[in-house]
Amino acid sequence: MEQNLSLFYGLSFLTAALAFAYAVYLYLWVKKQPTKNAKIQEVAALIKQGANTFMRREYLILAKFAGVAAVIIFILLPSPIWSGNILSNVEMTVAYILGTALSAVAGKIGIMVATHSNSRAAEAAKKGIEPAFLVGFRGGAVMGLLVVGCSLLGVAAVLMVVGDTSIILGFSFGASSLALFAKAGGGIFTKTADVSADLTGKVELGIPEDDPRNPAVIADNVGDNVGDVAGMGADLFDSNVAAMASALVIAQSLSGGEYNNISMVFCYAILGLLSSIIGIANARIGRNGNPTHALNMSTYVTTGIFLVLTAIATAVFDGFSWRIWGASTVGLIVGVIIGITTDYFTDDSKPIVRKVAHASQSGPAFTVLSGVSYGFISALPAMVGIAISALLAYKICEPMGEGYAIFGISMAAVGMLSIVGMIISNDAYGPIVDNARGLAEMGNLGEETIRTADELDSAGNTVKAVTKGFSIGAAGLTVISLLGAFMSEANESLAEAGKELITGFDIMEPTVFFGILIGAAIPAVFSAMLILGVDKNAQRMVGEIHRQFNSIPGLREGKKGAKPEYGKCIDIATSGALKELIPAGLMSILSTMVVGFIGGPKAIGGFLLGNIVSGLLLALFMSNAGGLWDNSKKYVESGAEGGKGSEAHKAAVIGDTVGDPFKDTAGPSINTQITVVSLVSSLMSSIFVAISLFS
Amino acid sequence: MEQNLSLFYGLSFLTAALAFAYAVYLYLWVKKQPTKNAKIQEVAALIKQGANTFMRREYLILAKFAGVAAVIIFILLPSPIWSGNILSNVEMTVAYILGTALSAVAGKIGIMVATHSNSRAAEAAKKGIEPAFLVGFRGGAVMGLLVVGCSLLGVAAVLMVVGDTSIILGFSFGASSLALFAKAGGGIFTKTADVSADLTGKVELGIPEDDPRNPAVIADNVGDNVGDVAGMGADLFDSNVAAMASALVIAQSLSGGEYNNISMVFCYAILGLLSSIIGIANARIGRNGNPTHALNMSTYVTTGIFLVLTAIATAVFDGFSWRIWGASTVGLIVGVIIGITTDYFTDDSKPIVRKVAHASQSGPAFTVLSGVSYGFISALPAMVGIAISALLAYKICEPMGEGYAIFGISMAAVGMLSIVGMIISNDAYGPIVDNARGLAEMGNLGEETIRTADELDSAGNTVKAVTKGFSIGAAGLTVISLLGAFMSEANESLAEAGKELITGFDIMEPTVFFGILIGAAIPAVFSAMLILGVDKNAQRMVGEIHRQFNSIPGLREGKKGAKPEYGKCIDIATSGALKELIPAGLMSILSTMVVGFIGGPKAIGGFLLGNIVSGLLLALFMSNAGGLWDNSKKYVESGAEGGKGSEAHKAAVIGDTVGDPFKDTAGPSINTQITVVSLVSSLMSSIFVAISLFS
Repeated sequence: MEQNLSLFYGLSFLTAALAFAYAVYLYLWVKKQPTKNAKIQEVAALIKQGANTFMRREYLILAKFAGVAAVIIFILLPSPIWSGNILSNVEMTVAYILGTALSAVAGKIGIMVATHSNSRAAEAAKKGIEPAFLVGFRGGAVMGLLVVGCSLLGVAAVLMVVGDTSIILGFSFGASSLALFAKAGGGIFTKTADVSADLTGKVELGIPEDDPRNPAVIADNVGDNVGDVAGMGADLFDSNVAAMASALVIAQSLSGGEYNNISMVFCYAILGLLSSIIGIANARIGRNGNPTHALNMSTYVTTGIFLVLTAIATAVFDGFSWRIWGASTVGLIVGVIIGITTDYFTDDSKPIVRKVAHASQSGPAFTVLSGVSYGFISALPAMVGIAISALLAYKICEPMGEGYAIFGISMAAVGMLSIVGMIISNDAYGPIVDNARGLAEMGNLGEETIRTADELDSAGNTVKAVTKGFSIGAAGLTVISLLGAFMSEANESLAEAGKELITGFDIMEPTVFFGILIGAAIPAVFSAMLILGVDKNAQRMVGEIHRQFNSIPGLREGKKGAKPEYGKCIDIATSGALKELIPAGLMSILSTMVVGFIGGPKAIGGFLLGNIVSGLLLALFMSNAGGLWDNSKKYVESGAEGGKGSEAHKAAVIGDTVGDPFKDTAGPSINTQITVVSLVSSLMSSIFVAISLFS
Repeated sequence: MEQNLSLFYGLSFLTAALAFAYAVYLYLWVKKQPTKNAKIQEVAALIKQGANTFMRREYLILAKFAGVAAVIIFILLPSPIWSGNILSNVEMTVAYILGTALSAVAGKIGIMVATHSNSRAAEAAKKGIEPAFLVGFRGGAVMGLLVVGCSLLGVAAVLMVVGDTSIILGFSFGASSLALFAKAGGGIFTKTADVSADLTGKVELGIPEDDPRNPAVIADNVGDNVGDVAGMGADLFDSNVAAMASALVIAQSLSGGEYNNISMVFCYAILGLLSSIIGIANARIGRNGNPTHALNMSTYVTTGIFLVLTAIATAVFDGFSWRIWGASTVGLIVGVIIGITTDYFTDDSKPIVRKVAHASQSGPAFTVLSGVSYGFISALPAMVGIAISALLAYKICEPMGEGYAIFGISMAAVGMLSIVGMIISNDAYGPIVDNARGLAEMGNLGEETIRTADELDSAGNTVKAVTKGFSIGAAGLTVISLLGAFMSEANESLAEAGKELITGFDIMEPTVFFGILIGAAIPAVFSAMLILGVDKNAQRMVGEIHRQFNSIPGLREGKKGAKPEYGKCIDIATSGALKELIPAGLMSILSTMVVGFIGGPKAIGGFLLGNIVSGLLLALFMSNAGGLWDNSKKYVESGAEGGKGSEAHKAAVIGDTVGDPFKDTAGPSINTQITVVSLVSSLMSSIFVAISLFS
């Protein structure tokens, strides 16, 4: 047992409790805010109801999936049940279920708060930007606090009870399963609705974005919540847990030396959450202040607090290392830098967005081509950033002893994710104010209020780019350390089987190379399947919208009493999303198994590498290109290049439509796909060691 | 000295001479075909003149570039001139210049023949499909024979004179330099013209594709020649030489054993050329036959002949191995399979093209999204094919002794490229009949003739997909073996420096991982720069076309005597192409050097791997998505989904415009970029060994 470990378990529970208490306080504060407008209340209720429909169906399917997975886990993992140690299998199964459950609870409550906050933020926007900002931000912060609190609580509880880090991988796999459903399923839902609403409303009929005549408009608003609040929360819950899990697996393999590695992992996670709480409590926007500035400022403040607190902890506690502090700091700083470069490519006050807007003058093909190109280029700084932070973290921690170099990389990931509570708060703020903007329009709150809401919404979009860059960067480092965790796990199985241990994955070995090439293709196929899912689903929904416009008398003209059937659109989006997502998820898991059974653990090492490399590239490309097109369109709508209604605007709208599933469905789901594949590999390592064709 | 080696040198020269003689015969045959129509002669002369303008300018810039490169090579390679052996540096420099020169000659003559063949093919189309097919095919075959003859001649001559395979890398680098200019520069040229002609002609004015009123129409036809004939020829010259070079470098490092490795490499190359000659001589299309079938048939016949001939050689010659025959056969068969799967994604009689055409009914965003998605999915079979062929070739040859496994992979690449003469013939056929179609339209040869030319053109497009899949697959295997060649070269330098040798590149080492991440970003940035180059250049040309339509009286209405200034468009395409290409080329080379100086040879190993993996993925994606959009558009034009003029058609045209630079500029240039980077790495290995920050 490491020194002080029980202290850090205790502190983990205490900090999680503090986060929950603060979340409850913020929730009550939000609920206290007034909401009077009847029209807004009506629409907000529809959104809430739609979101609940989706979540209920999603969790139902997930429960079935998790049930099957739990049985398989119980039979096979960490080692087949007939090989003896049944207790471990029970622990693993329970940990898996706990992982899905905690993530589900966080998502569910987050959605609840977000759908309460949107109408209140709309009302608050009547009074000015400051109160509306606070409602939006605090509503989002509830989600941030819950997610990080649940992940810290879950990981600490599981490890304290079972004492074996490899069981944490089961917990992490539970989180990943849910994230796959929430992020990819929510992503398909939200873009089905968004794309259909835009195509039929803005393009075909020329009515505004949130016009209540459009049958897809409620589904669109629901989508913002299920995709960006619940989906993104589950995604970052997953990343955060995976980063801790891989750090803990490696830490345990190193334990017994002079350092308190496991304690360090918990201490950094605790201080990250604490810093986020302080950052959230101090987020302020001056009267008439700039919301983008306020959001970014709180991120920087949280970063600073975290660096100071971890430095103090390193000085105070025995067995802590300044080298680990250095690695974590490198991760955090590189995260901020990746965020800033992402911003350069997606902010409409910077040249790239304007160039794409200008290219739209020559037609939609040029919008698409220039967006694709800058999207590809935008991947470079982040890839370089991740490469450098991995190299530096490795080199900083290498002198600590054998195996510490990879531990350093995992702590860089923990560092990058330390402020995830703040990141989620900023991210969940986005859909709340986006909804608020829609509600202000539907509730006829007047031009001034809509403008205020618009400003808040635009800040949400800008900040989203930064937080997305951040979360992809963190995922990059996490999966590198998951590769290390996979090697530890495989070696444990190899040692048990009396086989030669793996010391690394040499790309000149044919099985490794074989794995790399196939692994690299998987994220491309995965994202293609999701995009096609949106495509198919949106075609269904467009058909339904056309049907409603043609068959409901007076709807097209907006006659009083002619109401669209919003529920039908929500149904289509829901059932389609879940139907389209399952093949993509299965494809990823099955291809991992095929490669493992053909080439054994070495091929899997290569497979994970290929997956990481092409996954990072595509995730960055898709997220950034999508943000770029979105903001180019907004830039044109602000009056540039001919403004609304011009040919350039039509082209920019097409670019935005292409970008929608890129940035909100495929791009952010790739993270989850990589994590799922990494965890499946680690969990199944003993089976691949036992059975494979070529290894 | 290996047994029989001088015999194979002799046979190499003999076979090359035979290829040249047959090429001359075919050239004279083509020239004998009638060309009477005055209008066609006039336009054909304009195309020829335009092509010559571009080639002259390109070669002028290339000469400057090659001059600078030659000086650098002379000073630094294979080892700095001050370190002693000046003779090697002279040899390397001469080999480099020879590589550029032979490729340039092949390209120049190929263009000459192609621009002679187009008008004659148009005339022949009046008489029917059979004579027109023969003119197009034989014109293309001249290029195929020249390219393969020159590469065999060059490699054999250089090795015979200097006896050191690493000098062949210099020859190969010369070929790559030229390919970079020819393929990427030609690719920018051709798409600038094509995109501008389409946008102003088909979209804005609604006039046919090859309407002589359009000032860009001649540039468009010139583009087909410089991009697809000269560019593609240089590209495959480069791949072919690189495959031989890497096989030879590895073969030399293995020599002294029981096998005649170098002889085997030459023997396979000789028999490949011989098989292609036989295949070309027997290519026939029945009266009213199917040109696609005829082209594919000749590929299969050539493949069969090659397999039989190499089997006989293996049985006859001492020191030949059936295992090597197996590896080469695996390569060739997988090449054919990749070609067939590519066809599945791009042939308009298959479901994928039709699905994308159907998606166009919902608007251009759906055309783009579905094309992108299927493009990504289409990469999977080829990646799996390359992965399996590398794994099998490795495993087949592993028992031959240490180092033979990698040699097996390089011979799989040689096998895949063995029929390259046939591939180039099929590929160069495409632009000739494409031009012929345009000439038939401009020369008013009548509906029937245009239909015949159309049929030939469509076969060219279909076959192109197959040959492209083939050449990307071969490039994949080649670069894997170039990785092996790099390791040999680096180890030679490490041994000289008294440092520890490299036994592989372990992805868990931080410098390797660092290299991988950055290497993976480079093909994305490279292709983005080329696409943006087309984008910028096309915007210039569209401006010029608008100027001409507005300022030349009667041009828009097609009044007699109102002639567009074709030359201005050719000038814009030419100067723009060369201007846009240089930064992309420099970026690739400089990033290689930065990574090498930071992380040393191990980082370069990772860098090459990252480059290969993401390069293959993107090249396959772009080539296939582009072909898919092109054929979807043609499918809609054939009357499906509303046919010409429908909304679906407009959307399909936008998809095609997006796909144009994908498939003809960026996609096929990535091969060359990877080869260039691989060769720079091998050539500079001694310098990276001497100077690096972290290695």
